[in-house]
Amino acid sequence: MTPISRRAAAVQPFLAMDVMAAAAAKARAGGDVVRMEVGQPSAPAPRAVIAAVIAAAQAALATGRVPYTEALGLPSLRARIARDYAERHGVAVSPDRVVVTTGSSAGFVLAFMSLFDSGARVAVPQPGYPAYRSILAALDLVPAPMVLRAEDRFAPTAALLRETHARAPVAGALVMSPANPSGTVITEGALQDLCAAARGLGLPLISDEIYHGLSYGEPTVTALRFDPDAVVINSFSKYHCMTGWRVGWMVVPEALVRPIERLAQNLYISAPYLSQVGALAAFDATEELDAVRDGYARNRAILLDALPGLGLGRVHPADGAFYLYADVSNLTNDASDFCRRMLDEAHVAATPGLDFDPDLGNHHVRFSFAGSEAECRDAAARLKAWLR
Amino acid sequence: MTPISRRAAAVQPFLAMDVMAAAAAKARAGGDVVRMEVGQPSAPAPRAVIAAVIAAAQAALATGRVPYTEALGLPSLRARIARDYAERHGVAVSPDRVVVTTGSSAGFVLAFMSLFDSGARVAVPQPGYPAYRSILAALDLVPAPMVLRAEDRFAPTAALLRETHARAPVAGALVMSPANPSGTVITEGALQDLCAAARGLGLPLISDEIYHGLSYGEPTVTALRFDPDAVVINSFSKYHCMTGWRVGWMVVPEALVRPIERLAQNLYISAPYLSQVGALAAFDATEELDAVRDGYARNRAILLDALPGLGLGRVHPADGAFYLYADVSNLTNDASDFCRRMLDEAHVAATPGLDFDPDLGNHHVRFSFAGSEAECRDAAARLKAWLR
Repeated sequence: MTPISRRAAAVQPFLAMDVMAAAAAKARAGGDVVRMEVGQPSAPAPRAVIAAVIAAAQAALATGRVPYTEALGLPSLRARIARDYAERHGVAVSPDRVVVTTGSSAGFVLAFMSLFDSGARVAVPQPGYPAYRSILAALDLVPAPMVLRAEDRFAPTAALLRETHARAPVAGALVMSPANPSGTVITEGALQDLCAAARGLGLPLISDEIYHGLSYGEPTVTALRFDPDAVVINSFSKYHCMTGWRVGWMVVPEALVRPIERLAQNLYISAPYLSQVGALAAFDATEELDAVRDGYARNRAILLDALPGLGLGRVHPADGAFYLYADVSNLTNDASDFCRRMLDEAHVAATPGLDFDPDLGNHHVRFSFAGSEAECRDAAARLKAWLR
Repeated sequence: MTPISRRAAAVQPFLAMDVMAAAAAKARAGGDVVRMEVGQPSAPAPRAVIAAVIAAAQAALATGRVPYTEALGLPSLRARIARDYAERHGVAVSPDRVVVTTGSSAGFVLAFMSLFDSGARVAVPQPGYPAYRSILAALDLVPAPMVLRAEDRFAPTAALLRETHARAPVAGALVMSPANPSGTVITEGALQDLCAAARGLGLPLISDEIYHGLSYGEPTVTALRFDPDAVVINSFSKYHCMTGWRVGWMVVPEALVRPIERLAQNLYISAPYLSQVGALAAFDATEELDAVRDGYARNRAILLDALPGLGLGRVHPADGAFYLYADVSNLTNDASDFCRRMLDEAHVAATPGLDFDPDLGNHHVRFSFAGSEAECRDAAARLKAWLR
């Protein structure tokens, strides 16, 4: 009998990945499924990225290797990321404070491990990315939900952070903008207030900026503008369309660099080499990537136009990322069952809200519009026929 | 002020990576350094692997993507790994029990997390791979050293496991064969006894088989031969020369598959796609890889011939992997200082034993012979001149 730890038993399945498996099985069996369940761009990685990786692989064929890199990442990539903060955000970041990670997944693990000890409570937005709760549970930390409110545009606020901390003290807080699943972009003023509130409470602030660059109105502002000690997590998976490459980055305060380096040496050794080479080239692909983003904007418009007539009109702000988080409470009290039927009958895959919100999730469904324009039109038509 | 967690503060630096940074800096400054500090093959990844990855990248250019895979890995790769157990070891392993991981690093994290709760003690060999202790500390687990003995060929034994458990109960045990840093291959009989002892004590056994395929006498036998519930960890980094690709695998008992899948979904999403494609092709490169191993055998012979005359004659068994772990107590009581001077004066980089053994490490140095034959001859000559 193999024992299973309590912490592993406490980790919930990632429903989106289970829906993905079901949708993939249906597609393999010849089904024609519109895939709106995954947070994964359908656009290929930029041509410059692929070209760089082919060149690196060819070089490895001829003479070289595909080696481990320094645990903190290729120096050239760290420097290029730092430069981007100066150019894009007007924020000075030393390359020494940039940590290249194996996707944002590793960023969360390294941030939580380096900041918090067993049993600590960490404020996280609800609804929110499910891996926050799961990684915290796996590390014996306790998620303290900041329950987002319509009157705040489903954004975390300084007041909400203070309330959460007053209810039971937390050791730190995580915020995300643009957010998954709501699409909410925290406004510049609200982010400044949040940074000030965290600082006032003596709490480290982790800012998940993985959907930066993907917004449809509000600009995406880094927390580093208002708090040089914010722990920023980002990735090449979303704006840069590099999901399966597993490469991302953090910007961390000076004092955390060496503790994170020690953890990364032991837990990851380094991020994958070819992916780091590709990521470096991604900075030369802005034109191509902005065109992909413009496609998302068109997809979003198609869905925002079509859904209200189908009883799916109450969506969260959706001013960034590539998700619509729709309130389906007028159609069902069981979003998981609703999604199963939608997949079986309408052949549209989407993610039930329980992934993001253990309390109100059964009233919500997340639609990803990271696919093509044709898929979005197709999905709208299928849903219209199905919900009629 | 950023707080730093106690667990992060408890993680020791990986000295080998610090030596690697110092040696790289010396090389960049024009120094001519023989690199014997890293556990990284100098041979390139197999041609078949590189060719497969270039083809996959070109396909991505044309039409496709570099996507996330299933959290447990590409089904084709899981099946191919399972087949290898049948062909190479005569052990039937269902592909469902194979988990593709982001290097063995992720394998340790997933094994420890899924088996053990905070505060549990886990038996690990000493000397041993330093990341065992560090990952355990980062997960709030407690390493319980099994102190290896010359009379046991520096291999863990059933008796040693029982003694360790009797001293203070452990929740499980980890063994490694061939071992880092000693090179010791656990004999078939000893491994069978270890498996029986763990089972008798009701303890899960984790078998680190990352150096399988690299031995110079004793065959490398999988623990699955004697315990179908062993948790086996392996990687494409050593025999397959695919370090910077960050891809490895586990074989786990049926009951652990779903808990590990949930953890992997949240902590890693998936191993890098291109690396998984490459790994699949690595199974077609046995001839090329066996030739690399034959090169290690020659390197090993050169060093085993040269070192005794230099006062470095007391080496651990070294019947596998690509390391010599030399007792330097007749030369120094401070192996770290010895290694620093060896790098500065002889321009040979090696890893001080404290990485592997907090008690007796200062009497040992680990030399990696994963480099070229010329480098090994060169190192022997430099050490001879330096130690004269």
